[in-house]
Amino acid sequence: MIPTIDWQDDHVVMIDQRKLPFKESYVVCKTPAQVVEAIRKMVIRGAPAIGVAAAMGLALGGRRIKTKNRATFERQFQRVCEKMASARPTASNLFWAIESMVEVLREHPQASVEELKDLLRRKADHLLAEDQAINKAIGHHGQTVVPDRATVLTHCNAGALATAGYGTALGVVRAAWEVGKNIRVLADETRPFLQGSRLTAWELQQDNIPVTLITDSMAGYLMSEGKVQLIVVGADRVAANGDIANKIGTYSLAVLAKENKVPFYVAAPLSTVDLSVATGKDIPIEERDPREVTHSLGHAIAPPGVNAWNPAFDVTPNRFIAGIITEKGIARKPYKKALKAMKTQSV
Amino acid sequence: MIPTIDWQDDHVVMIDQRKLPFKESYVVCKTPAQVVEAIRKMVIRGAPAIGVAAAMGLALGGRRIKTKNRATFERQFQRVCEKMASARPTASNLFWAIESMVEVLREHPQASVEELKDLLRRKADHLLAEDQAINKAIGHHGQTVVPDRATVLTHCNAGALATAGYGTALGVVRAAWEVGKNIRVLADETRPFLQGSRLTAWELQQDNIPVTLITDSMAGYLMSEGKVQLIVVGADRVAANGDIANKIGTYSLAVLAKENKVPFYVAAPLSTVDLSVATGKDIPIEERDPREVTHSLGHAIAPPGVNAWNPAFDVTPNRFIAGIITEKGIARKPYKKALKAMKTQSV
Repeated sequence: MIPTIDWQDDHVVMIDQRKLPFKESYVVCKTPAQVVEAIRKMVIRGAPAIGVAAAMGLALGGRRIKTKNRATFERQFQRVCEKMASARPTASNLFWAIESMVEVLREHPQASVEELKDLLRRKADHLLAEDQAINKAIGHHGQTVVPDRATVLTHCNAGALATAGYGTALGVVRAAWEVGKNIRVLADETRPFLQGSRLTAWELQQDNIPVTLITDSMAGYLMSEGKVQLIVVGADRVAANGDIANKIGTYSLAVLAKENKVPFYVAAPLSTVDLSVATGKDIPIEERDPREVTHSLGHAIAPPGVNAWNPAFDVTPNRFIAGIITEKGIARKPYKKALKAMKTQSV
Repeated sequence: MIPTIDWQDDHVVMIDQRKLPFKESYVVCKTPAQVVEAIRKMVIRGAPAIGVAAAMGLALGGRRIKTKNRATFERQFQRVCEKMASARPTASNLFWAIESMVEVLREHPQASVEELKDLLRRKADHLLAEDQAINKAIGHHGQTVVPDRATVLTHCNAGALATAGYGTALGVVRAAWEVGKNIRVLADETRPFLQGSRLTAWELQQDNIPVTLITDSMAGYLMSEGKVQLIVVGADRVAANGDIANKIGTYSLAVLAKENKVPFYVAAPLSTVDLSVATGKDIPIEERDPREVTHSLGHAIAPPGVNAWNPAFDVTPNRFIAGIITEKGIARKPYKKALKAMKTQSV
């Protein structure tokens, strides 16, 4: 299993996903501010992995607060949480993880500061372990929709590297492979950050699951040629009505899938479902540095001074989605009802 | 005007489009084999430019045949034509240009070998000059469909660099700009060869036409946000029924345009229209070296040894196309009738 993120002594260590697959190097975070920076700069990315990193960063932050007074601790911890929440705007797992950590304080009103520090660390450990279990469950449910001998198209990386391990969309692929289905994966390269060519292709190569790389612009043509049987992607946020925000390009795939009658599934833990957001229109879409578009892995691909636009995500309306695969099963239309039932059940 | 291709003494000189916009260098071809190689390696690309290059290469080839015997000349010239036809399979302008040159021989049955050599050179000169005039006419007709204050999306490079000058799709943009319409262009980067980020962005920058670069995966999202008023692309081949082959990714744009009610136009000279091909299904689609996909401008973007697929073109069915802008006007549905009338009229 690829080690996306873990503890090393009392520090948070992450594989540097900006350098993969060319260099296997690690970033060690000793402060919550370093975790914020690692999330912002995409050392670690993928909604579930961002959530786990935030929780671990907050445990780290709690540990570093120098007071024995609980009220002071709570105030200072709140400030650490606010900084963590500013790391990236779209993935709801970030806010869900922060809320889960704040809950620890609420659930233990009598605990001392030292006890709280231990409880926060234990909560972060739990979220780390739980994420892997959730992904296995997503895989278990999701593999049922994967036909034998299917070519499965995916976008970006919703794999082990986007989670604490195993992956969401790639968890579905791994589970189908593990039950003996003879499948292959088409990986969109996913410009500008190239999560598909750098991370998805690498992960699947390591697991010996057949993978073929294409540019993002090829996916539609391959669908029209009947060469794609299923699309599975992850999500950064799922609105109450089943609209999803995911890596830029996901919406285009969904429209092309509908035109070509290819089933389009989303695989995401319930921590990605945000019932407080009614529809996809209410999900904030992060815009990143245009330099990611004018460059590719640091090399200029456009004339100096050219304008560029870099929305990192897009919104796919629920009508394009055949099902949302969660750890509790596959939500189907109407999503509002199905997602609410699953979320309530999970609390 | 950007000099895509020209004569220098008796040699064919082309700007090296693989190096743009970072280096303005030129490739000098002294033999038809060198022209074939330049087309194959995409020193020069774009259907109209390929046609002009082929004609000039054949004029070069004719000049180099060492015989005074007309029958011998014709046999040897035929072999040069066959090699030229093998350069790339999709752009019909290549075959049209070769046929135009062969016609010179048929039209002058009494001419001596020396006279034929001059006639071939004059024909190539004519095709070079004619291509620019054709593009101006395409721009003249096409600009009528460009709304004032429109954001016009284009894919790949159907500009001055894809032609002898002015461009087809970018000819429409230039003509709209020249009549005073306040437009801006969204340029898809067009992986894997990056014709959009390297060539279209550069061309428009040089002409001070506002251009914003996006990745190919962003176009659909921008359409869904109402940020695109018109799409204009070029074509490598237009079938008799109005289906078109164009740079990979064009089909996806057309489907997304229909979903979002954005008019999708194709700009191409009638030399790109191939009435001998009934539908898009009959157009051969070139597959290029997978290394173009696993690399970006020579830099690896994927793990070593990964499989990749690299179809260079796709087919867009006629039902997605609002109009085909030619030098004779805008062909509308039913395309079969409209295109046949225009082709017949032009002969």
